[in-house]
Amino acid sequence: MQGQMMNRPLRIIDILLHAAQAYSDQGIVSARIEGDLHRQTYPQTLARVAQLAHVLTSLGVKPGDRIGTLAWNGHRHFELYYGISGIGAVCHTINPRLSREQLLYIITHAGDRLLFLDLTFVPLIETLLPDLPAGLRFVLLTDRAHMPDTPLDALCYEDLLAAQPAHFDWPEFPEDTASGLCYTSGTTGNPKGALYSHRSTLLHALQVPVCQTSSFRAGRRVLPVVPLFHVNAWGLPYVAPLTGMTLVMPGPNLDGASLYRLMESEAVFSAWGVPTVWAGLLTEIKAQGRIPQGFGDLVVGGSAMPRVMIEAYEAHGVIVSQAWGMTETSPIGAHGVLPPAMQTASPSERITAKCCAGRRLFGIEYKIVDDAGQRLPHDGQMAGELFVRGNTVISGYFNNPDATRAAMDAEGWFGTGDIASVGPEGQLTIRDRTKDLVKSGGEWISSIDLENAALSHSAILACAVIAVPHPKWDERPVLIAVAAGEARPTLQEVCTHMAEHFANWQLPDDLLWVEALPLTATGKVSKLTLRQHFAEYTHPDLRGDTA
Amino acid sequence: MQGQMMNRPLRIIDILLHAAQAYSDQGIVSARIEGDLHRQTYPQTLARVAQLAHVLTSLGVKPGDRIGTLAWNGHRHFELYYGISGIGAVCHTINPRLSREQLLYIITHAGDRLLFLDLTFVPLIETLLPDLPAGLRFVLLTDRAHMPDTPLDALCYEDLLAAQPAHFDWPEFPEDTASGLCYTSGTTGNPKGALYSHRSTLLHALQVPVCQTSSFRAGRRVLPVVPLFHVNAWGLPYVAPLTGMTLVMPGPNLDGASLYRLMESEAVFSAWGVPTVWAGLLTEIKAQGRIPQGFGDLVVGGSAMPRVMIEAYEAHGVIVSQAWGMTETSPIGAHGVLPPAMQTASPSERITAKCCAGRRLFGIEYKIVDDAGQRLPHDGQMAGELFVRGNTVISGYFNNPDATRAAMDAEGWFGTGDIASVGPEGQLTIRDRTKDLVKSGGEWISSIDLENAALSHSAILACAVIAVPHPKWDERPVLIAVAAGEARPTLQEVCTHMAEHFANWQLPDDLLWVEALPLTATGKVSKLTLRQHFAEYTHPDLRGDTA
Repeated sequence: MQGQMMNRPLRIIDILLHAAQAYSDQGIVSARIEGDLHRQTYPQTLARVAQLAHVLTSLGVKPGDRIGTLAWNGHRHFELYYGISGIGAVCHTINPRLSREQLLYIITHAGDRLLFLDLTFVPLIETLLPDLPAGLRFVLLTDRAHMPDTPLDALCYEDLLAAQPAHFDWPEFPEDTASGLCYTSGTTGNPKGALYSHRSTLLHALQVPVCQTSSFRAGRRVLPVVPLFHVNAWGLPYVAPLTGMTLVMPGPNLDGASLYRLMESEAVFSAWGVPTVWAGLLTEIKAQGRIPQGFGDLVVGGSAMPRVMIEAYEAHGVIVSQAWGMTETSPIGAHGVLPPAMQTASPSERITAKCCAGRRLFGIEYKIVDDAGQRLPHDGQMAGELFVRGNTVISGYFNNPDATRAAMDAEGWFGTGDIASVGPEGQLTIRDRTKDLVKSGGEWISSIDLENAALSHSAILACAVIAVPHPKWDERPVLIAVAAGEARPTLQEVCTHMAEHFANWQLPDDLLWVEALPLTATGKVSKLTLRQHFAEYTHPDLRGDTA
Repeated sequence: MQGQMMNRPLRIIDILLHAAQAYSDQGIVSARIEGDLHRQTYPQTLARVAQLAHVLTSLGVKPGDRIGTLAWNGHRHFELYYGISGIGAVCHTINPRLSREQLLYIITHAGDRLLFLDLTFVPLIETLLPDLPAGLRFVLLTDRAHMPDTPLDALCYEDLLAAQPAHFDWPEFPEDTASGLCYTSGTTGNPKGALYSHRSTLLHALQVPVCQTSSFRAGRRVLPVVPLFHVNAWGLPYVAPLTGMTLVMPGPNLDGASLYRLMESEAVFSAWGVPTVWAGLLTEIKAQGRIPQGFGDLVVGGSAMPRVMIEAYEAHGVIVSQAWGMTETSPIGAHGVLPPAMQTASPSERITAKCCAGRRLFGIEYKIVDDAGQRLPHDGQMAGELFVRGNTVISGYFNNPDATRAAMDAEGWFGTGDIASVGPEGQLTIRDRTKDLVKSGGEWISSIDLENAALSHSAILACAVIAVPHPKWDERPVLIAVAAGEARPTLQEVCTHMAEHFANWQLPDDLLWVEALPLTATGKVSKLTLRQHFAEYTHPDLRGDTA
C-alpha cells in the first residue's frame, strides 16, 4: 500500500533557497585570483545564481547539457554549482591537474557546450585550443577590468551576470535528473565519469551532517581546501549552506603560510583537505607557536593521515577525523566521528580509533568479499574487496558501458578496488588495493597507464610501476624495468619519452633496473612481491636526509 | 538527462540497523507500567524488533495491513514502530484519550487486523469489545507474569517474542510504501487519517536534525514526553537513533514530580512536549531549587508556551525552542533554533524571537493566501491562511476523498487552517485559525461537533462553542446557548446528554445562556464577535483565584 504523502522532487537549488532565507547573514568569503578577499551573503549569492541561470538560458543551454568548469575554490565556482544544476543542466567540474591528453579526452567525452575558466587556466586552454571540439565557448570567471588578452573567443562572467535580473523561476524536474559530472582518473585507461543526480546530492548533503557532527555549527566557518573540482569538494558546497555555515574559499594558494593567514583572519572553525596540505599547515603552526584562532575541527580525506600528525593537531585541541570516499561515492562513505563509547577512552585509544578510514555513513552499505565472491564477516579481522551500495553511489560510469560492467557486481554493488576489513561498529580499515593505482597528494595515478607508456620505449622489455610510501605525497610511483638489450636509458630519458601522455607530477620518481620481474601463479607480475622487495627503498628526494 | 546513481528505497528499518551498529552502547530506557525501569541497547532492540517481525509474519500480517497500538511511551511501543513498518505493514498509533465513539470509528475505519495494548488500556478495550470489528486480535504488551484476567482473547507479547529467532531478512519495497497511520481528531466530523510513507518518515528524520541543531548530540539522552500515539512523538523515535541518542521513555506518569525524578536519575539532556507538561515540571523545579542534572534543551510544541515560562526555563540555562507542526506534516514544519545573527542579541530580544511558532524547516514550503486565494508577501506583517508543501506533508487523508478535497488547494498544497504571517527569514507566526477548533492540552476539540451534540438537546435552540484562553490547558471550550423555551438545563445536564459522543475532557467547561447569537454578514454565527464579547470571561475553575 502506498502512503498518502506529497512526492516533491529533491532539488539542489532548495539548499540555497533555504540558506538565503534561514541564514541570511552567512555566505561565502573568497580569496580571489584578482588578489582581493571577496565577501557575499547567501541572499546575494542566490541573486547572482539567478542571474547566472538567465545567462545560461540566454546562451542556449538546455536541460541535460554539460557545462565545464576549470576553477579554484571561490564564490563564482560555487555559483556555477547551483546555477547550472538549477536549470537542469550538468555541472562538469574538471581537474586542471590532469595531463593535456586526459583534459582533451574528458572535455570531448563529456560533450561540454561551455567552459567556465578561472584566469589561471587561460594559458592552459590556449594550448589545448587546436584540439578542442569546435563550437566550444568560453566564459572567463572575472570582471571586465581583469579580462586578459587572449585568442580565446571568451565572454566575461561579471558582464554577463550584470545584464540579467536577480530572480529566476527555478524549474521542477524528476529528482534523478543529472546535476553534476566528475571524472576519476588514474584507473586503467581513460578517465571515467560519475554522473551525480539531484537525489544523490541532496541525500549526501543530509546524510553527512547527521554523522559528521563535529564539523557543522550554524554561524561558524568552514574551509574547503579540497578543490571544488575534486568530487564536489567532498559535499561542502551543499552541506555548508544547508547547516548555516559560511564557506571560506582559499583560491589557488594552499601553502601552509597562506592557509594559516586566511584561517586566522577569517576565524575558520572546520577545515577539510588531504594530509599533504595539513603537513604544510602544521609547519606554519609550529612557526607561529599556536593554531589559527577559532580553529577546532579538521577533516582529512584523500589518503590516510599519519598518526603522528593526528597527535600533533589533537595536542593543539583540534578534533581530527578521517573520512573515506571516492568520486564514485559522492564522495563520503565513511566518517571519522568517534562513537559515544570512546568519549571516556584514553587519548591514545582515541587516536588509535582515528587511524582507521572511518565508520560507515548512514545511507551507505558495505560488503566485503573474498576472491570467490563470497561474503566475509564484518569482524574487523577478515579482509576482502570492499563493495558499496546506496543512493550516493554510482550505478555506472557516464557513457561507458565497458567500465560500468567491470565496476558493478552481479548484485548491483559497486566494487571499490580496495581491500578492506569492516568492524562490528562499521569501522572501515583499508588494507590494500586490488587496482593498480598510486595515490599521490590525494590524486590517483594509474600504474598500468605508466607501464604501457614506458613499454613503448625501445630499451624496455618489461616493467612494473609500484606505489612506494612517501612522507609528503603519501605514495609516489617508481618504475621497475627489465632492459631489452644493453641500453640503460636514464629516468629523465624515459620520462621525456612518456611525457606527452601525463602531467609532470604523474611521472615516476625513480627507475630501477632488474633482471626479471616476479610473477604470480597465473603468470602476472606480482606487485605484492615487488612492494615487499622494495620495502626498504628510499626515494631520491629523501636520500639527502639520511646522507 | 538522468544521473547514473543507484536508486535505493529509503527504509525506516535502516535507521535502527545503523543505530545498532554505530551507537551500540545507546538505546532505550523505559519507565514501564509494570513499575520497573527497563534498559536495552539498540542492538538488543534490533534483535527484539526482528523477533517481532517473525511474530507478525506468523500471525499472518501482510504488507499493507494496518496494526493498531494503544500504548504509552516505552521500548515495546518503539519496537512496534520498527517491526510493523519493517515488514511493509502500517503502524497505526491510536490516541487513547479519544471518546469511545471516536475510538470505534478509528479502529473500524483503519481496518486494523491486530491491536497491541498496554495493560492500562485493557479495561477500555473490554468496554469497546461488543462494538469492535469481528476478528480483531489483541496482544498485551507485557510478560506472562503480568497477564491480567480478561475476557479479551489476548496474546502475550513477551511470550510471542521469546519463541522467535533474533534475525530477520528485512524486505525491500518502494519507498512510498505506507509505514504509519495517525488520525487527527477535533476537526469537523470524524477523525481523519494521515498515512505516512517510508520516504516521508526518512526525510523528516534527516531534515529535523539539520535544523533543530540544539537538541541532538550522540551519546546524550532525549525524553519524548509527547506520546508515541501523537504524530510519531514528533519524530523522536526516528531522529534519536539516527543521531546516536538514548531515548528515555516516561511511561504513563507525566506529572512534574515524576518527570523531574526520571530526568534527574537518567541525566536527560533534551525534553520534548506540550506546555502543560512543562508548567508541571517548572513547579517541581521551583520546589527542588534547581533543574534536573544534565538538562539543557527543551522543545515545545502542540501549543504556544507563554513568554514567562520560556523566561523561567532560560533563566535556569535551558535552551527553549518552540516547534510548529501538525499530524498532517509528520509533524515538524517549523523549528525554534534561532539564526546565528541572534547569537549576539540581548536576552530579551532572544526570548521575543522564541515566542513565534518557529522558522521554516528545510524541506517544507509555506505560502499564505488571502480570502480570494491570492498569495501574500512573506514580510512578517501580512497574515493569510497558511498552506504547506513538501515530502513530509500529506497529499490526502486515508480513505477519505471528501476530506482530501476540502484540505488540498488547486496547486496541490495542504491548507493548515491556521491564519499566519511569515517573516523574511521564514519566521512563522500563527495569528488565528479558520477552522472551528479548540486546542486543549495539545489536543484538538471540534467546536462544530460539540455544537451539533448540544443542539440535539431539546432545551437548546441555537448555540456556539468558543475557545477561551486558559492558563493551564491553553484553551477550553465554552458553550454559548439560546434557549428553545423556558427550560435552562445546567451544564451538568447538557454534558450528560452529550457524553456518549465525547471523552470527558472534550466537554465544555461552562454553559452561558444568551438571548441571541451574533451573526456575520452572510448569516453565520460570528465566532470572532463572540470571542471579543467574552474576552473578559473567567473560567469556572479559576474563579476561586479572584474571589
